[in-house]
Amino acid sequence: MRVEIWSDIACPWCYVGKARFEKALEAFPHREAVEVVHRSFELDPGRAKGDIQPVLRMLTKKYGMSEAQAQAGEDNLGTQAAAEGLEYRTRDRDHGSTFDMHRLLHLAKERGRQDELIQLLYRANFAEERSVFGDDERLVELAVAAGLDAGRVREVLADPDAYADEVRADEREAAELGANGVPFFVLDRAYGVSGAQPAEVFTRALEQAWGNRSPIELIQQDDAEACGPDGCAVPRN
Amino acid sequence: MRVEIWSDIACPWCYVGKARFEKALEAFPHREAVEVVHRSFELDPGRAKGDIQPVLRMLTKKYGMSEAQAQAGEDNLGTQAAAEGLEYRTRDRDHGSTFDMHRLLHLAKERGRQDELIQLLYRANFAEERSVFGDDERLVELAVAAGLDAGRVREVLADPDAYADEVRADEREAAELGANGVPFFVLDRAYGVSGAQPAEVFTRALEQAWGNRSPIELIQQDDAEACGPDGCAVPRN
Repeated sequence: MRVEIWSDIACPWCYVGKARFEKALEAFPHREAVEVVHRSFELDPGRAKGDIQPVLRMLTKKYGMSEAQAQAGEDNLGTQAAAEGLEYRTRDRDHGSTFDMHRLLHLAKERGRQDELIQLLYRANFAEERSVFGDDERLVELAVAAGLDAGRVREVLADPDAYADEVRADEREAAELGANGVPFFVLDRAYGVSGAQPAEVFTRALEQAWGNRSPIELIQQDDAEACGPDGCAVPRN
Repeated sequence: MRVEIWSDIACPWCYVGKARFEKALEAFPHREAVEVVHRSFELDPGRAKGDIQPVLRMLTKKYGMSEAQAQAGEDNLGTQAAAEGLEYRTRDRDHGSTFDMHRLLHLAKERGRQDELIQLLYRANFAEERSVFGDDERLVELAVAAGLDAGRVREVLADPDAYADEVRADEREAAELGANGVPFFVLDRAYGVSGAQPAEVFTRALEQAWGNRSPIELIQQDDAEACGPDGCAVPRN
């Protein structure tokens, strides 16, 4: 079974939602048969790399919240994160483009290190003081900690086209699947979970997707050559 | 879209079938959206690592063919392989356990090098003189050529438990899906193609699976917290 998770590093509910999903997955009896893939979704896809702002200013200017509303929202996030055992800095975080991080997550996918990297990126962005924005060496450090090669990571960061198509393809696919916000979880391309739902909802989705794995429909014109425990056969049609 | 291919390195129709599938995939307009995963299937799962025999003897002793039948079968395979542009040695190949190769293919999957490795293993087994059986250093060479780290490959070869569960899990899944021979192709867990079918059948399967991608069914109790282009929302239920 495969679970695809569309998310953005700058999306706090993705950080919280991932922990809720993982709680459900850990208790799922068939967890060994579940493969998790992370897909790209930028909340602010046109954003320039150099455009970095304090989160509070972004919330008040872009989304028109009052400063008190914005801070109350951050405090609520801090509480929800803590309930999942996650650290969350409710003040003085930065906000910027996540495009490069998504490109690195595609490099990490190729190397089997995607979950390690996204976990480190979330933690760095939401729980650590040093910003992940406008600081390539910070990203190199995190990617190396996730098991990637520093030289290759620097190459990817230096070339804005590297894995750019893969990021765009994920984002197109999210739109095709009807996702207009994140986190968005898709199980075996059959069931979806939208938002940071409680762990029980993820449990229900895992159970339902597992129970409804449908039989495979065979497409063939005739029996074809194949090998089995009793040898290789060339069928006579 | 995802295509899973169950196969064995010792299965000549898997070698030929993979080439036929790839011909169809190359001409498929949505090929960029197709991800290929190789799954393990040992034709002879209990076979001891040291039990290596000439293919001809295996065909005559285990499957009760006459020597002439066995050689005619190999000649037919040579012709079919050549039609797909593949080299195939119709005489003097060896046969043995493929368990270690499957374990290495799981290591390669983690590193994003699975297709490279299976291609090299097939070629080595079917087209090259030096045997892939009973020769760990040969496997190290091929795995390094596929982009894996020699030290890690030696570690995996030296530890028969490494990735053994992953091989068994693939084999259990094949049985659950009803595959009793290989190659066995599964598209999006909805459509199957059994055997080395002609490229046209793979084209039909790809088109059918693409056309029938079903809409996602949402599983949730209420709207949950999520972030979109217009900010992060905490729904009031």
